[in-house]
Amino acid sequence: MNEHDDPHLVETAIASDVVFLGKLLEVRSDRVRLPDGGEATREFVVHPGAVLVVPVLADGRLVLERQFRYPVRRVMLEFPAGKIDAGETTLETARRELVEEVGYTASLFRPLGTIHPEVGYSTEFIDLFEATGLKHVGARLDEGEFLEVVTMTEDELLSRFDSGDVTDGKTIAALFAWLRRR
Amino acid sequence: MNEHDDPHLVETAIASDVVFLGKLLEVRSDRVRLPDGGEATREFVVHPGAVLVVPVLADGRLVLERQFRYPVRRVMLEFPAGKIDAGETTLETARRELVEEVGYTASLFRPLGTIHPEVGYSTEFIDLFEATGLKHVGARLDEGEFLEVVTMTEDELLSRFDSGDVTDGKTIAALFAWLRRR
Repeated sequence: MNEHDDPHLVETAIASDVVFLGKLLEVRSDRVRLPDGGEATREFVVHPGAVLVVPVLADGRLVLERQFRYPVRRVMLEFPAGKIDAGETTLETARRELVEEVGYTASLFRPLGTIHPEVGYSTEFIDLFEATGLKHVGARLDEGEFLEVVTMTEDELLSRFDSGDVTDGKTIAALFAWLRRR
Repeated sequence: MNEHDDPHLVETAIASDVVFLGKLLEVRSDRVRLPDGGEATREFVVHPGAVLVVPVLADGRLVLERQFRYPVRRVMLEFPAGKIDAGETTLETARRELVEEVGYTASLFRPLGTIHPEVGYSTEFIDLFEATGLKHVGARLDEGEFLEVVTMTEDELLSRFDSGDVTDGKTIAALFAWLRRR
């Protein structure tokens, strides 16, 4: 049995329309055929995919960023991450985001798997990488991008997760993946 | 210092418009004031919030569901979860989703914290609960909802995560929260 292709669960596209095209978001509305032959509508954000990097310094400390996230109106503690640009491999995105956002190059990127942050209404996937052999070269933030780079030990990050201070889903999933797969 | 209110990072709303209102999704486009006085546009999905339940059977096995998720075109292995209905507390949502989706009542719901699955473009938060004292009463799926209920041990679920078979972000974050906070 193909684990991801069960005929009694799978929906297939009948029609697909772009219903919103903004500066950041593209939303599609698809008419789908249900497993029982019925029809339904599925609305979702079309996303190019993203990359998240767990940067590990020589002394074991982790590099994170604090960034205001307007949709949730909070400063979030997150691992560096960003969208894949057209034509980029996810490794190239990892390399670019690590320099741009937190200002490091890395000699080694090791894949930690893939997650889907919002399966209900987004096509987004996030490829996770561990970055080691870090060298500080200085961040190059995009215009209008404001963030603060912080470093902390694994224990500090875990204690901030336990206290409820770390709530970013991708950062929590990546931390868990890194702890089990490093 | 208020950890979530740093003036050098915070953006404030200037104007806010609903730019798409579909059957499932509401998208807003806000004009915001940046920390340096500049302006920018933020587009995001407005979401009522959701609840995820980690249901633990008397023998320690966990109850999950397999469900086709159209945006990512896969059958995903997930803990039961769902949107908060108007007027519901998150505990009421947890109780409702546990019966509707996987067919169990629980004698105890214990909070495991909150996550934000998509801080880049959604207001969504997910309150996590552990449910114990389970009693099987049979699922009551919504019309057009197709899913398969599965149970597995913690070790089986961890091994499926390690092999890359579990990629749902909220399920991975909830598993980690449950392992550390149970």
